[in-house]
Amino acid sequence: MAPETLTPERILAATEDVLRRHGPAKATVVDVARALGVSHGSVYRHFRTKAALRGAVTKRWLDRTTARLAEVVAADEPPAVKLRHWLSTLFEAKRHKAGDDPELFATYSVLTGEQNDVVDAHIAELTSQLTAILQQGVACGEFDISDLPATARAVFEATAHFHDPVYAPEWSRPDAGPAFDAVVSLVVRGIVACRPGVS
Amino acid sequence: MAPETLTPERILAATEDVLRRHGPAKATVVDVARALGVSHGSVYRHFRTKAALRGAVTKRWLDRTTARLAEVVAADEPPAVKLRHWLSTLFEAKRHKAGDDPELFATYSVLTGEQNDVVDAHIAELTSQLTAILQQGVACGEFDISDLPATARAVFEATAHFHDPVYAPEWSRPDAGPAFDAVVSLVVRGIVACRPGVS
Repeated sequence: MAPETLTPERILAATEDVLRRHGPAKATVVDVARALGVSHGSVYRHFRTKAALRGAVTKRWLDRTTARLAEVVAADEPPAVKLRHWLSTLFEAKRHKAGDDPELFATYSVLTGEQNDVVDAHIAELTSQLTAILQQGVACGEFDISDLPATARAVFEATAHFHDPVYAPEWSRPDAGPAFDAVVSLVVRGIVACRPGVS
Repeated sequence: MAPETLTPERILAATEDVLRRHGPAKATVVDVARALGVSHGSVYRHFRTKAALRGAVTKRWLDRTTARLAEVVAADEPPAVKLRHWLSTLFEAKRHKAGDDPELFATYSVLTGEQNDVVDAHIAELTSQLTAILQQGVACGEFDISDLPATARAVFEATAHFHDPVYAPEWSRPDAGPAFDAVVSLVVRGIVACRPGVS
């Protein structure tokens, strides 16, 4: 039986599995190679350093959320509805990651602390998605915004309680939902051109 | 010369000094007593446990900010101006604490992590001050808010980037000022009854 081709995706899936089992402090490239039944040289042909491999697996983890959010940006919805939808999708994705698999979430919390470039690119991608939604709202007259990128960043920072992993312990509290709604309502009210139509 | 009377305030000042020098992990009640030239029994007469002493010194540190903010609440200013003033006073107070004396700030970051009750009471006091400002704005028709306490909490959470110590490393960045202004403008716009008068 011919061995399965060693693709970057197979390596990254194995890396995530190794990280989950061994923890980020102990996981090595040799562990990943062993899990795949290949030499560590084969892994290094795809990812030239251990840091590059850790960066790529972190990016893969973050991109899962980004891909889902991109679908919301592309959806056919009024901008204020879409903005709420995007923020609640982000909150739900993070809350599920933290609640469904706490060990993997803790692992990625360590990795994101190391991978500043990957995290900065992720945040840039998210604020660019937000900018697109705000732009749609301005184009159809629903939003009144003078500086789009600055406002997108402000929306992202104002809602940090509901996506920044440092607040993960608060996401399982019974009042997390109402608290999220209150902040999102405040933010949406802050950008809509015509108040009575939205709040 | 009669020895100075041993007051709670003298004990707390000495405790802060001991914490700064020895670090929160090593500082003991015996160190505090030695710094004051008294027996540790004398310290325990005022603070019955080491935890109580650490709680009291943490409260004293947090109350310094609260007292300054209470003056803003009492000031004779239009509510939207006062809300910005209050938020910038909070940000400046935290930023100064973090920047002027990083060791003491790190010490208190450890203590606040231990003292959940003291921190919860501090946050309750701050949101109650915010509620008072929002109430003033509603009373004079400048703010349009249906649920005052929920909105006060939302304003507090939406501005966490600029007062939660987890974000302290970002406060010295050159764009911290503009980022603060963008979030505060968004929040103020979200509660004012008449948009053109404020933004």
